[in-house]
Amino acid sequence: MADAPSRGLADVVAASTALSDIDGRAGLLSYRGYDINDLAGRASFEEVAFLLQRGRAPDRAELDGYRAELAAGRQLGALAADDLAGIARRQRPMEALRSLVSLGSADDPDSASNDPVANQRKAARLTAQQPVLIAAYHAARLGRELPAPDPALGIAANFLLQLTGSRPAARAAEIFDTCLVLHADHTMNASTFAARVCAATLADMHSAVVAALGTLSGPLHGGANEQVMRGLEAIRQAGGDPLDAVSSQISKRLAEGDKVMGFGHRVYKTEDPRAAHLRRMSAELAAAAGDDTYYRMSRRMEEVVLAEKGLYPNVDFFAATVYHYLGIPTDLFTPVFSASRMAGWTAHVIEQHADNRLIRPDSEYIGDRGLSWVPLDAR
Amino acid sequence: MADAPSRGLADVVAASTALSDIDGRAGLLSYRGYDINDLAGRASFEEVAFLLQRGRAPDRAELDGYRAELAAGRQLGALAADDLAGIARRQRPMEALRSLVSLGSADDPDSASNDPVANQRKAARLTAQQPVLIAAYHAARLGRELPAPDPALGIAANFLLQLTGSRPAARAAEIFDTCLVLHADHTMNASTFAARVCAATLADMHSAVVAALGTLSGPLHGGANEQVMRGLEAIRQAGGDPLDAVSSQISKRLAEGDKVMGFGHRVYKTEDPRAAHLRRMSAELAAAAGDDTYYRMSRRMEEVVLAEKGLYPNVDFFAATVYHYLGIPTDLFTPVFSASRMAGWTAHVIEQHADNRLIRPDSEYIGDRGLSWVPLDAR
Repeated sequence: MADAPSRGLADVVAASTALSDIDGRAGLLSYRGYDINDLAGRASFEEVAFLLQRGRAPDRAELDGYRAELAAGRQLGALAADDLAGIARRQRPMEALRSLVSLGSADDPDSASNDPVANQRKAARLTAQQPVLIAAYHAARLGRELPAPDPALGIAANFLLQLTGSRPAARAAEIFDTCLVLHADHTMNASTFAARVCAATLADMHSAVVAALGTLSGPLHGGANEQVMRGLEAIRQAGGDPLDAVSSQISKRLAEGDKVMGFGHRVYKTEDPRAAHLRRMSAELAAAAGDDTYYRMSRRMEEVVLAEKGLYPNVDFFAATVYHYLGIPTDLFTPVFSASRMAGWTAHVIEQHADNRLIRPDSEYIGDRGLSWVPLDAR
Repeated sequence: MADAPSRGLADVVAASTALSDIDGRAGLLSYRGYDINDLAGRASFEEVAFLLQRGRAPDRAELDGYRAELAAGRQLGALAADDLAGIARRQRPMEALRSLVSLGSADDPDSASNDPVANQRKAARLTAQQPVLIAAYHAARLGRELPAPDPALGIAANFLLQLTGSRPAARAAEIFDTCLVLHADHTMNASTFAARVCAATLADMHSAVVAALGTLSGPLHGGANEQVMRGLEAIRQAGGDPLDAVSSQISKRLAEGDKVMGFGHRVYKTEDPRAAHLRRMSAELAAAAGDDTYYRMSRRMEEVVLAEKGLYPNVDFFAATVYHYLGIPTDLFTPVFSASRMAGWTAHVIEQHADNRLIRPDSEYIGDRGLSWVPLDAR
């Protein structure tokens, strides 16, 4: 163990994957060979989840069959349902999802099997359940009944229906569907890597996904979209012209060396391709809402950070205002991200199990050496 | 992302640590500079947990204070306690522990804080709770009340008391205490690495430990001790002379290229130092039990595998018979391992948070490229 450690494993190739690829210099992201710019607005989240989990674009019959699996998988497990009220009262959103998904394995008939077909079935169920768990958690903490899903709607529209109690406008559902597509996978991000480290001991899919949820809960990974929105809200609530306030506050924070959430990425050296789509959707939703203040504030913030630091907005930056305009509570932004990324996490577990090797790195020892243990009474 | 991947991150240095060190060629393991051979039988598990979590051997007053923290932390949280009956009825042991620890964060007043002192308090509580959760799960699945702990006893003796309902013999408690010491930490094993990947997003300690528990549940990591015991039981139950049966069955399996659980290790090239201690303790317990069949079968298996494959027993091999002679049900062997490793996992989270960098490796893309998305109706 003589080598110097690669801090954070930056630039260390930890796994092979056929699921997604990033060209950080060109600003390109693809899923199984399809450019995200080709998929956004043209492929549904259900098609993308099938593509990731089952290896290729579904034909009509395959997609109908997959949608039926998703509809059947939407039912919450009995153990999670029984404990929902207490969890919603006592745990924060990501903490609650970690618990609910862990409990959910009790009601999955395939929970202990890593068989490829069992893994595919579990991937569909977990993808179907995640948005329902979020809506159910939100309803429970408000003391409301969970609105019933509409079997005619897809995952995106059903989530907005079950979260808000109102059937979403068709365009809002389309935009949210595109958000789910954009966030579905992203190579070896920290939560996906955690899922693969877990799955590589041949732990089951629920264990791997629970590890991913915990990892996503950290503010350096999943929390950024929420922090972007809270930052915008704080600036707006402070009063005065919101655009001027953005300019002065962000310049001041950058000058003090503070990090501004939602900018920069370890992999992309130019604009994150997902940010461009989210920016356009934020503009459209802002116009439809009749109050584009948060959108204009975001644009100003983007200009200031690019001019002063040369940093581009990442996926979290415009996702914040898009989610806000869609009526999603700010503390559910990271959970909503998890509803999309569930498609990718589960696909990575399938891929890891299909060609597995234990992931067990070395460490560099930097502590004391050669000490002699002195019994307590002589210490 | 042009580099070839390091499959399984073998020989890649992923982190620096002052917690434990392995010399795989010499067969040495140390915790914070103390050789495990110096600690085994001389340091209590509580002293070792303090050493790992707080950086040095405690003096008498510090150890008394730490023991008081552990005693106070033994109480199960209300959310976990409320859901215990359903979990014990519906989830396998490691699945249940993953759920119970995830629920437990609701009742930890420090759960959302990564402050170093909050992390130390949580580490003590999680270390105190893990054996109680195992005993409570076991009592619940049997429909029994959990036996009350004895405040005069340490973690090891209290666990055996709460698991079995009987106060353990002093020497049995000492031997189990030594088992807890031997398993407390082991550099960058898969579950510890998962905990660090999770903690490196600044996720909280409960999230990291839940990720570790899920990772340990995989048969390539935590399941080996259980599989060793089940293998011994199957050979003995088949009848005939058990030593002859071991010789013939193991030779046959090795000749067929099967892996025999409990042998070999990615890091140790000679005997695992923990195995030597566990072998001695297994012999002692076997003699005390008046039936040393499983011990003698293990010795024979060790001889066959060493002669035919040159592989040494690892930590899981003699742990199996030690746990068996201590009266621990076979399906709780991996949970019992987690009760010890909790000391190490929590110490690694403290260390990761104290000098953090996001762990985000690269991946090598091996899939299709440049595909064009064809809309569903044209597919």
